[in-house]
Amino acid sequence: MTFTHLLSAGDLDRTDAIRILDTAEELLGLASRPIKKLPTLRGRTVVNLFFEDSTRTRISFEAAAKRLSADVINFSAKGSSVSKGESLKDTALTLQAMGADAVVIRHQHSGAPHRLANAKWTNGAVINAGDGTHEHPTQALLDAFTMRRHLGELEGKNITIVGDVLHSRVARSNALLLDTLGANVTLVAPPTLLPVGIEKWPVETSYDLDSSLEKADAVMMLRVQQERMNAAFFPSAREYSRRYGLDTPRLNRLPDHAIVMHPGPMNRGMEITADVADHVRSVIVEQVTNGVAVRMAVLYLLLGGAAGDSTTEEGTE
Amino acid sequence: MTFTHLLSAGDLDRTDAIRILDTAEELLGLASRPIKKLPTLRGRTVVNLFFEDSTRTRISFEAAAKRLSADVINFSAKGSSVSKGESLKDTALTLQAMGADAVVIRHQHSGAPHRLANAKWTNGAVINAGDGTHEHPTQALLDAFTMRRHLGELEGKNITIVGDVLHSRVARSNALLLDTLGANVTLVAPPTLLPVGIEKWPVETSYDLDSSLEKADAVMMLRVQQERMNAAFFPSAREYSRRYGLDTPRLNRLPDHAIVMHPGPMNRGMEITADVADHVRSVIVEQVTNGVAVRMAVLYLLLGGAAGDSTTEEGTE
Amino acid sequence: MTFTHLLSAGDLDRTDAIRILDTAEELLGLASRPIKKLPTLRGRTVVNLFFEDSTRTRISFEAAAKRLSADVINFSAKGSSVSKGESLKDTALTLQAMGADAVVIRHQHSGAPHRLANAKWTNGAVINAGDGTHEHPTQALLDAFTMRRHLGELEGKNITIVGDVLHSRVARSNALLLDTLGANVTLVAPPTLLPVGIEKWPVETSYDLDSSLEKADAVMMLRVQQERMNAAFFPSAREYSRRYGLDTPRLNRLPDHAIVMHPGPMNRGMEITADVADHVRSVIVEQVTNGVAVRMAVLYLLLGGAAGDSTTEEGTE
Repeated sequence: MTFTHLLSAGDLDRTDAIRILDTAEELLGLASRPIKKLPTLRGRTVVNLFFEDSTRTRISFEAAAKRLSADVINFSAKGSSVSKGESLKDTALTLQAMGADAVVIRHQHSGAPHRLANAKWTNGAVINAGDGTHEHPTQALLDAFTMRRHLGELEGKNITIVGDVLHSRVARSNALLLDTLGANVTLVAPPTLLPVGIEKWPVETSYDLDSSLEKADAVMMLRVQQERMNAAFFPSAREYSRRYGLDTPRLNRLPDHAIVMHPGPMNRGMEITADVADHVRSVIVEQVTNGVAVRMAVLYLLLGGAAGDSTTEEGTE
Repeated sequence: MTFTHLLSAGDLDRTDAIRILDTAEELLGLASRPIKKLPTLRGRTVVNLFFEDSTRTRISFEAAAKRLSADVINFSAKGSSVSKGESLKDTALTLQAMGADAVVIRHQHSGAPHRLANAKWTNGAVINAGDGTHEHPTQALLDAFTMRRHLGELEGKNITIVGDVLHSRVARSNALLLDTLGANVTLVAPPTLLPVGIEKWPVETSYDLDSSLEKADAVMMLRVQQERMNAAFFPSAREYSRRYGLDTPRLNRLPDHAIVMHPGPMNRGMEITADVADHVRSVIVEQVTNGVAVRMAVLYLLLGGAAGDSTTEEGTE
Repeated sequence: MTFTHLLSAGDLDRTDAIRILDTAEELLGLASRPIKKLPTLRGRTVVNLFFEDSTRTRISFEAAAKRLSADVINFSAKGSSVSKGESLKDTALTLQAMGADAVVIRHQHSGAPHRLANAKWTNGAVINAGDGTHEHPTQALLDAFTMRRHLGELEGKNITIVGDVLHSRVARSNALLLDTLGANVTLVAPPTLLPVGIEKWPVETSYDLDSSLEKADAVMMLRVQQERMNAAFFPSAREYSRRYGLDTPRLNRLPDHAIVMHPGPMNRGMEITADVADHVRSVIVEQVTNGVAVRMAVLYLLLGGAAGDSTTEEGTE
């Protein structure tokens, strides 16, 4: 790999991105074996450093690391020395000193994983599991992986991403990665939910969902953060759902081969109806499965340097 | 086994119940080996999905799963996407998609494990670790296991269960399982702490503890939920303790072979005096040990399909 | 070993203490191997029983136990049956009954680990991970280990410990252990932050930091508990920092070979300036690494009885 951390989907060149997706494809096959475990990362320690609650993402990384036989230590920053005023730098140095081979970090502030990676981490890999409104690169990778399995190579494919782009690290990471992979991205959102500077993103934008459906190979619905609903920039729930929600009539206007995606957790009845969520063309549950495989691939590629040695030394286990 | 989940003690027929108890007996022997670990569930993932705090039960399942070499992921539902409005169904689908082989669920609402099992869980086993005031089947199994070790086969044995039956999932699960195993159950409680419809349970009831002591082979004291103490249906603490607490004079009226049980945690001095709790005829600490063995047996029987293969494939480990 | 628990640094005689440090030295070499894991404690269960939050200490013990292949169960006492009124004794009996081979306990009350060890723990080892203002023996061991690596044998060495000695279990455990190892300890603190009875400790005391710098082989800065800052016995933050903080001018007055230590987490700018914390003579990050090795040594020596058997039985794994 040409990188030692995974901080941003934008850092990945096409070769790296495809290598991650190809590795995930191999690892996904593991799930059908009677023993779903590889000895690759035995003796390695992965720390889940979560400053924000995100059980779903934490569990996905935990399952991925354990299937590679790594030891996992969960560090919820609430009530930790961080809340006693310890700096992120000192937390990083502490985890490094304890022998963490990788730190998976979720943080409410954009850029925190970068600061962690730049502090003095000479040996440990830093993996961004979501930082503020900035990026969530493994989500973009699992989304691309899911699309590729259904649509084939992504070059020239049309992907429509719908919703609160302004606050969405998922949208940003997807836009960057999909551009690298040659797909055409359209972001659909109310004008107040598109970020300033969007014209510099490698995407098209639209305020109108209906006009972008007919050509879409995949539609990705973003989660509505309910707590933002009463803000001035946000339409009312009913208005939002009517204009930007995915329901059956809209589903029927998609091409026959198109798939429906959502990073979860869903607000059924808000950005997506229950019927569409459970529809045969929805790949939302599959995204979760693929998330474990993609995170295994990232851990494997970042930490697997000693993997060959390990397998050799340990024999057939 | 004739079941793929463990939702209710009432679902177990006599053959299944005895098979679980016999398997636990074999696994209990493991504790005396230098290596207390079996490779049976290596590569399998057990998720502890706890919507209610219950460290004691969670730890027991965690220890059981780890002794069978399973990977364990703890999911405390507080602060999780559940609290962001995700439905139980979507949580279930997510855990399934991540490859959970079993979900151990504790929930404040009666019936939640059943909903989880019915959602779409085709591969994963659901184990009820306590749902509302409804059931706690592994507690009943460990209680029956403990009785059988001391009293022999339970057919015809007299078991007295004392306390707040109204709110006790332990009492309900015990009543159902003990009836299946042929024991005679007497529930002793103040009239206001017996549930409506109790006449349909396969038990006798009594308001008077003293009259049921002489014939009891085992007396099980239920935990008093202190927070219920001031409710209209509850006697005062002093009155409760005087009429329904187990003290030394009452202990002395039991047959010589009778045992004293409690699911824990105890309120010493309330439903049971410290002397009785620590008496040689108390098997309360043993119940905890047996709980790990019984939960190992349940996990082994529900997930062990590939177990033989696993042992073979992995050789001597 | 002449002990079955590790409750107090004062319980360790010189032979035991040196045996722990020597074992840690061997285990530290492990970190440079490709596989940082030993099979020594496979099948053993270590419970982290934390009544106080301390992510840093908990993670260090967790990493240590996992590198010895033990299973680790984390038990945060918040929201547990302890908060439902269960006694420490019953918690202890429960963990023992579940097969815990060691309990690492952190508790807000001085003496809690001793009560746990005395309850009925016939098989399990109790390790004090900090109790009230009383002791924190593994911290003292890792400090001594770090000093020995830099200064050689501690006999006759001069160690200066600076800060809130009154509330510091770190200071007390260090004073006891360093005395056992033959070092000369000077405690420097404002008069109101020295405990009553300090004259019985095997130390010298001083109110003046500057006068003790020239002869010090190591200076250990204690963490200021910010929440105590407004108490009557505490100087103002500015006054404290000016009189008892370690800054560059003070660092320059130390002998050339002297090292700077801190148990962490630091308040940069309060008891230690950022420059000093990051100085080449600061061994603060190294203390963290050594903490894992020392805790591995303690677990190994307390539980390792079956270790040889285990390695033999399991062959080359």
